[in-house]
Amino acid sequence: MATKDKDLNDLFLDTLKDIYFAEKQILKALPKMAKAATSDKLRAAFEKHGGETEGQVERLEQIFELLGKPARGKTCDAIMGILDEGKEIMDEYKGTNALDAGLLAAAQAVEHYEISRYGTLKTWANELGMKDAVRLLDETLKQEKTTDESLTKLAETAVNLAAAA
Amino acid sequence: MATKDKDLNDLFLDTLKDIYFAEKQILKALPKMAKAATSDKLRAAFEKHGGETEGQVERLEQIFELLGKPARGKTCDAIMGILDEGKEIMDEYKGTNALDAGLLAAAQAVEHYEISRYGTLKTWANELGMKDAVRLLDETLKQEKTTDESLTKLAETAVNLAAAA
Repeated sequence: MATKDKDLNDLFLDTLKDIYFAEKQILKALPKMAKAATSDKLRAAFEKHGGETEGQVERLEQIFELLGKPARGKTCDAIMGILDEGKEIMDEYKGTNALDAGLLAAAQAVEHYEISRYGTLKTWANELGMKDAVRLLDETLKQEKTTDESLTKLAETAVNLAAAA
Repeated sequence: MATKDKDLNDLFLDTLKDIYFAEKQILKALPKMAKAATSDKLRAAFEKHGGETEGQVERLEQIFELLGKPARGKTCDAIMGILDEGKEIMDEYKGTNALDAGLLAAAQAVEHYEISRYGTLKTWANELGMKDAVRLLDETLKQEKTTDESLTKLAETAVNLAAAA
């Protein structure tokens, strides 16, 4: 399994494939989450993030191109597990006033997975001297952090207050 | 599946069980990650976080007690997926100079999952008026954020530089 001459370049490419697969799964999940949301604000947030995710997929494709490699995903068990938990919440809390709080929690778990992966990739791109990749990864990283902050605000205000009422 | 009278209290308890299961899995994984690490600093970081994780499990048990519920975990697909990816890295990069970088990435994905779950639980505890739970969750949340920051520093300096050399 282990090849002694594997290095940080291989790890970078493997992780790029991992997050590429993850983004494509997220792109499929977001419209379902938007449809399930009862709050208009939450639905709008999911729809907005769907558009951003398309841009993030394109940036990943640009990095594959910089590396001269085909853009290919690699099954990411982590995102599958995170999204499965989200689906479970959608089933178990459907029709209850805690559904939106559960959807927000699922979305924030997704955001944090992405923040960790993009942070890691940016650090490695820096060390590998890939300036263009650093710029692209940083753009997405900032977007993910902003999304997470706006989800936190939603969680702290309207959505959960309704659930607790 | 869905019960109309489920509310934020149920969601809080379900999520508490999810992170309780996750922490127990992390507690099992950390010694393996420490053993696999080639850098002394990284090994020490994993060992330190193992000790902290024991305290986090205890705080969760205190919250179960506050709720008058038995401390029980509930299978958490997300953490299983995240840890599986970590195991894969350990296998595929064993003996290479990128192993520590991969271990750091895996550990940061774990940290971010925890940060998202503790952040969510703290927000809900606040809304449910559970002051003691808020305090306990906040203590763990701060610890997780500090751990993530120190892992980021490690990733930016010694460990990955060795991998890129």
